[in-house]
Amino acid sequence: MKPRIDFWYDFASTYSYLAASRIGPLAEAAGVKLAWRPFLLGPIFKSQGWDSSPFSIYPVKGRYAWRDMERLAARLGLPKFSPPNPFPANSLLAARVALALPDEARPEFTRAVYRAEFADGRDIADRALIAEILRGLGHDAEAVLAMTGEPALKDKLRTETEEAVRCRIFGAPSFITEDGELFWGNDRLEQALEWARGKNS
Amino acid sequence: MKPRIDFWYDFASTYSYLAASRIGPLAEAAGVKLAWRPFLLGPIFKSQGWDSSPFSIYPVKGRYAWRDMERLAARLGLPKFSPPNPFPANSLLAARVALALPDEARPEFTRAVYRAEFADGRDIADRALIAEILRGLGHDAEAVLAMTGEPALKDKLRTETEEAVRCRIFGAPSFITEDGELFWGNDRLEQALEWARGKNS
Repeated sequence: MKPRIDFWYDFASTYSYLAASRIGPLAEAAGVKLAWRPFLLGPIFKSQGWDSSPFSIYPVKGRYAWRDMERLAARLGLPKFSPPNPFPANSLLAARVALALPDEARPEFTRAVYRAEFADGRDIADRALIAEILRGLGHDAEAVLAMTGEPALKDKLRTETEEAVRCRIFGAPSFITEDGELFWGNDRLEQALEWARGKNS
Repeated sequence: MKPRIDFWYDFASTYSYLAASRIGPLAEAAGVKLAWRPFLLGPIFKSQGWDSSPFSIYPVKGRYAWRDMERLAARLGLPKFSPPNPFPANSLLAARVALALPDEARPEFTRAVYRAEFADGRDIADRALIAEILRGLGHDAEAVLAMTGEPALKDKLRTETEEAVRCRIFGAPSFITEDGELFWGNDRLEQALEWARGKNS
């Protein structure tokens, strides 16, 4: 059995975008199976006393983060980093849609949303944009969007976010190995993959 | 002329300890000259509304940071991470002593203080400990400690901390290249060295 990593991400999170753009091939090469788990960071930040992204609350840190994102996007060969306005985006709709899709369709949808948000600077809370992305990937946009209004799906996202808290997650992206080891941040992706292999091979 | 990096660190900072333990050989190999610049993060945190380390203010993040430090110390071949009590330490005395020493003596003193603090778990606000470290490195402990009470030296540390703010520093460790590019965190050390080489060679 391949070892597994749970990849926890929030659609509003800049560094989750970087991780989502590179985790697929890295996990493949490492022989690690991925579970893509979107959740909402907002309730967790609120419980820490934050009503927004730390990059908005602390402007000096925020300006640095933009520059850091520009440099890292360039190093990864991604399009020029172009943050959306408003930032942080409301990621509720995108997260519900991601959970409404079958597991195997989630990575591609996730990458497309992030690219619209952080390369094209678009607002992912816009239902029309999400519909456009779904259609572009060959999904029945109306059917998927209709699912996001159902109580079962709303509950699913709520449960996932509660599970993130239970796993001691406080930021995104986060990676958790099968033995419960938590790694926070795009910078820890390689280390998380190594840990998963070492503990499972 | 060799390119130069300013290495800004606070003696209370866990991740500055990691950077200090490895920056010397890495900079040497990269052909980059280092300026070791201790400063105080406390006034900067205060201006952000924090009266302590974020690892103390946000316990879930703090517990993660300890585990992260344990893993990283092991990877770097450092002694078992053993945080001091109280944490964060008061780093004022150590910073003044570091500035009182000649430039060429500062790296060795810095590493010795960090090791006492994060490997032996000792309190670096203790004057007797700092004297012991100075003597162990062959310095005249009484003479150096006497300097730390002088207005000129107090002013020097205050000026350095103001300079850190002016450079848009909000955390430690931070690395700044000669063209003013800021890199934050032990995880960005390699990138900072690459930047310094690319822009100056």
